[in-house]
Amino acid sequence: MNDREFVSAAVLGATGYVGRELIRLLAGHPRIRIAAASSEGAAGTPLRALVPSAPAITLQRAEEVPLGECQVAFVCLPHGEAAAWSERAYAAGAMVVDLSQDLRVAAARPEWAEQAGYGLPELHRERIREARLVANPGCYPTAALLALAPLLRRGLVAGPVIIDAASGVTGAGRTPRADLLFAEVAENFLAYAVGNTHRHLAEMRDQAGALGGGAEPELVFTPHLLPVRRGILETIYVPLGERLAEPAAPWREDYEGEPFVEVLETRLPTLQDVVGTNRVAVGVREVDGVSTPLLIVVAAIDNLLKGAAGQAVQNLNLMSGWPETEGLL
Amino acid sequence: MNDREFVSAAVLGATGYVGRELIRLLAGHPRIRIAAASSEGAAGTPLRALVPSAPAITLQRAEEVPLGECQVAFVCLPHGEAAAWSERAYAAGAMVVDLSQDLRVAAARPEWAEQAGYGLPELHRERIREARLVANPGCYPTAALLALAPLLRRGLVAGPVIIDAASGVTGAGRTPRADLLFAEVAENFLAYAVGNTHRHLAEMRDQAGALGGGAEPELVFTPHLLPVRRGILETIYVPLGERLAEPAAPWREDYEGEPFVEVLETRLPTLQDVVGTNRVAVGVREVDGVSTPLLIVVAAIDNLLKGAAGQAVQNLNLMSGWPETEGLL
Amino acid sequence: MNDREFVSAAVLGATGYVGRELIRLLAGHPRIRIAAASSEGAAGTPLRALVPSAPAITLQRAEEVPLGECQVAFVCLPHGEAAAWSERAYAAGAMVVDLSQDLRVAAARPEWAEQAGYGLPELHRERIREARLVANPGCYPTAALLALAPLLRRGLVAGPVIIDAASGVTGAGRTPRADLLFAEVAENFLAYAVGNTHRHLAEMRDQAGALGGGAEPELVFTPHLLPVRRGILETIYVPLGERLAEPAAPWREDYEGEPFVEVLETRLPTLQDVVGTNRVAVGVREVDGVSTPLLIVVAAIDNLLKGAAGQAVQNLNLMSGWPETEGLL
Amino acid sequence: MNDREFVSAAVLGATGYVGRELIRLLAGHPRIRIAAASSEGAAGTPLRALVPSAPAITLQRAEEVPLGECQVAFVCLPHGEAAAWSERAYAAGAMVVDLSQDLRVAAARPEWAEQAGYGLPELHRERIREARLVANPGCYPTAALLALAPLLRRGLVAGPVIIDAASGVTGAGRTPRADLLFAEVAENFLAYAVGNTHRHLAEMRDQAGALGGGAEPELVFTPHLLPVRRGILETIYVPLGERLAEPAAPWREDYEGEPFVEVLETRLPTLQDVVGTNRVAVGVREVDGVSTPLLIVVAAIDNLLKGAAGQAVQNLNLMSGWPETEGLL
Repeated sequence: MNDREFVSAAVLGATGYVGRELIRLLAGHPRIRIAAASSEGAAGTPLRALVPSAPAITLQRAEEVPLGECQVAFVCLPHGEAAAWSERAYAAGAMVVDLSQDLRVAAARPEWAEQAGYGLPELHRERIREARLVANPGCYPTAALLALAPLLRRGLVAGPVIIDAASGVTGAGRTPRADLLFAEVAENFLAYAVGNTHRHLAEMRDQAGALGGGAEPELVFTPHLLPVRRGILETIYVPLGERLAEPAAPWREDYEGEPFVEVLETRLPTLQDVVGTNRVAVGVREVDGVSTPLLIVVAAIDNLLKGAAGQAVQNLNLMSGWPETEGLL
Repeated sequence: MNDREFVSAAVLGATGYVGRELIRLLAGHPRIRIAAASSEGAAGTPLRALVPSAPAITLQRAEEVPLGECQVAFVCLPHGEAAAWSERAYAAGAMVVDLSQDLRVAAARPEWAEQAGYGLPELHRERIREARLVANPGCYPTAALLALAPLLRRGLVAGPVIIDAASGVTGAGRTPRADLLFAEVAENFLAYAVGNTHRHLAEMRDQAGALGGGAEPELVFTPHLLPVRRGILETIYVPLGERLAEPAAPWREDYEGEPFVEVLETRLPTLQDVVGTNRVAVGVREVDGVSTPLLIVVAAIDNLLKGAAGQAVQNLNLMSGWPETEGLL
Repeated sequence: MNDREFVSAAVLGATGYVGRELIRLLAGHPRIRIAAASSEGAAGTPLRALVPSAPAITLQRAEEVPLGECQVAFVCLPHGEAAAWSERAYAAGAMVVDLSQDLRVAAARPEWAEQAGYGLPELHRERIREARLVANPGCYPTAALLALAPLLRRGLVAGPVIIDAASGVTGAGRTPRADLLFAEVAENFLAYAVGNTHRHLAEMRDQAGALGGGAEPELVFTPHLLPVRRGILETIYVPLGERLAEPAAPWREDYEGEPFVEVLETRLPTLQDVVGTNRVAVGVREVDGVSTPLLIVVAAIDNLLKGAAGQAVQNLNLMSGWPETEGLL
Repeated sequence: MNDREFVSAAVLGATGYVGRELIRLLAGHPRIRIAAASSEGAAGTPLRALVPSAPAITLQRAEEVPLGECQVAFVCLPHGEAAAWSERAYAAGAMVVDLSQDLRVAAARPEWAEQAGYGLPELHRERIREARLVANPGCYPTAALLALAPLLRRGLVAGPVIIDAASGVTGAGRTPRADLLFAEVAENFLAYAVGNTHRHLAEMRDQAGALGGGAEPELVFTPHLLPVRRGILETIYVPLGERLAEPAAPWREDYEGEPFVEVLETRLPTLQDVVGTNRVAVGVREVDGVSTPLLIVVAAIDNLLKGAAGQAVQNLNLMSGWPETEGLL
């Protein structure tokens, strides 16, 4: 790798759980050099205090990051603040991966129609290869869309889809909140945003509609908070028009050769199958004893990797023409 | 209480998680004296080695328990073994609470039609008061039936009901199994018995059918294993024929004055609301953005208390004509 | 109990982990009526929103609590603020249990010399019976002093005592802090205040000195943060002048008949032995293969019960002339 | 890497926690090809069912592994069984890393005096480079010896050393045991092998004596079981003959440039600093308020990596003349 040129990367918003995971991945990526990392609250701190394997640089305020000298910018800033910084980095000539939700829904980014892509590589690989700016998907939508795509594309969904999901607490971020204290989360479990009020729903509907050829399927999405640090498991109930001859076949076909998708045949995914990896694991089961065909699809990802930082690197690999798995195995 | 006579109780199967919890409750119950406790594997051990507050008696093999001298027998033996012991205790003249699944489904106990009752007090209080033998409900069915009863009784359910449930590991018992080791369960989450293969389903259907006036509603039941010690949370999706004017009203009406049911109005139940108590907490939400009315009912119980040992004591209180909350607050 | 008069209690500082646990205990105490409970941040909230079994009163600001109408006040306010409120309640005629550290060290409360006592009942029962104000001990000192008292009283300690302790996170309180988030504490373990810098050390030295007849023993205290919600375990290394004939004998003798002390003979204490109870469990072991006699004493308590709220009720029971275990079994 | 020859490796005992971690590391090691993996209980199972990134080979019984075709054998078999297999592999011409305790104590392996080495690279690097068989250190000794070496070598230890240690449950292996069930370990903490009865003590004494120039220092070792999956933290109390001018200096000097040792200056190690890495993190503090100088050294490792599989790979790298960090960053 000595003779290869490194790509200079900036990470805006490096101190959250996603930011740190991204720093860790980029520090181990053979083609990347982390040139700058920002934090409004921790500017002046050595990056290594956060991530021991990071280069010896110091956290800066976002304003101080020399975007023009970076070939790629990862924007891990809060929703609402991120889009402006993505635009700025893009204008400065960098490739951009925006990890916020700001640009995920097409309607929210009409002005980006030409340059931007929705960064779910297994569904939009060619578009991402040509994009200069990618909206990195949300963690819940990543699992849900990869689980549902084989059915949506085939037009097999015949009624409202119930996405019952559970996530580890890193999904809620690193800001101190009483309800995220260890003593509140341990030995506990709860549903939140019940009744279709979660902000990820628009993104899921938008993408699911596109996969299904336009008509948005009805989605019911209920997230739960798990007493684990990382990982998302979704148990998805899909009414079908007709029973499938071989339930797992659509996933096997669609994801053959995908480096980061594992279609389980003999058992169903667990969090431990995927935590620490960039993979999604998927399994399906038919439901006995109901009058209309119902399929249960279970999907698991690591919310910080395939659900955020890992997928961001996968997108950069595609945008850069590198092997898609570089730095991710 | 000095002038009051104590009732002699035997606990068959005292060393499991349910058995211990029951010993603990009975040791603190003002009208009960624990006269005998059995364990095939730990016979000869002082009961206090298991439960410090227990009386100074020694565990016996079930064969050695003098059932004829006990006024009540709690049968916490494995499914398949329990019914025979319940019959034996009943024949010896004791009141019986059978905590196994052996007698829960009516069709499985035709010969008990006269004497037995299904021990869910909030739904079958009068029947239990007259029973001499009670089949204590399963943990998952307890939460599901209390959550669904107000809708079933009113004939409001208009399609398949999806019961997405999660339980702490004590629900799986205390026998050493590799998949229940700390290192396998911690930081993990998984679905099991997916596709309507769980043994509690027959019990749910049986009881739900009775509540609905005969026609068994279609149920889809997916349990998950949570990295917590105790507690069950069920997120239940119910298609309705029409939107309810005030969604929580049926629960408020049906459970008014119930000492062990808490209908939450402003938030939804969590495990921590109920663990350590004999209560069920219930909350409801309508789902936005779907074309046919859908209600989400969330219910939580402590699987070892309202889901097992606590409910067993509640049943005994009813059978004995004592205050229903005796020893349970 | 109908014919018995209830004692009116106020709880100042009811929303922390200790305050809630105290409310729960008092709500179940047969001689207490909770008349008032305070919170600066949550004034106006029904107390039942915090503790379901609480009476139907509303949280008030401390200023609004009618101390003159309460026969006992429990002061669970932050260190530094508590003493002034304890003084106020005392002046208003109430018995006071101060759960802060403000009055624990004798030198810090010279003006209370007559009225106040250090509320460790197993060591100072008679003094507490006559006290109108009690300084409730810290959680770490409670376990350490009960573990060490039998050796200190007998003058057996022959060198520096190392108290290696670990506590669940509720010991750190309920204020949101990044280092107490679930994702930081789970799957983690760390030492803090290393090198004798913890604020509980002065209290331990003060009391240990009094037990030893004046000379303060040298103490080394290293607390650790455990990924559990509650419980303290202390592993204490004590150099002895001579080997003991029967190591556990001093504890057995000193604590015979104590309702809340369990001296284990065949195994050592664990957190699960004591969490949820007001008991301390103690066990001792001699160390093999060292040239001078060394004893290891292991002690465990529930930091919120014997280490705080439970002991506060035990103290009130003594101060009131009630059975010491009232409301605590 | 195409032009490089791969070294064929066999892993005897691949299904335990250490075996799986080793498979995972070897699968990602750029110079290794896993040629065989054994399990008596799971022979016939694809290795990928255990470790998704493993090559497509099938688990064999140890008897079936063609040791003569392997250039290196990792022996992860139970204590007592391992030595015979290490001898067999050695006789067949393979380099051997024995991860059991069988060969760790010099007195237990007189016949290996020429060929074998104790595999703690930071202390015995040159010896390991020339060894054909290495006894991989125990997890507790690895942390303790790296923490103590700078003091032992300088002859600074002036009295009994107390090693108070805590380990995650993977240290206890993967065999189903009731005391390792999630419901027993979660929300619990306990000491075991108290009083110097742990089998790792002989290894610690042996090595500590060698470092100190022959005289074995007195060691007191108390392990605890933590409710975490992996990681060891040791809090070590060392009496010194005299106060050190700059406490951390010996560690900084001895470990300068060490790729897997991190000497913390401003804070002390936590489990989360090291879990998932092959690093040991060390920090030191002087104790205030004691009459004779006492130093507290805190050390943390991942018991499955630096405490087992990671160190085994580090040893192989040395034995093979490869970069020491190959496959470990």
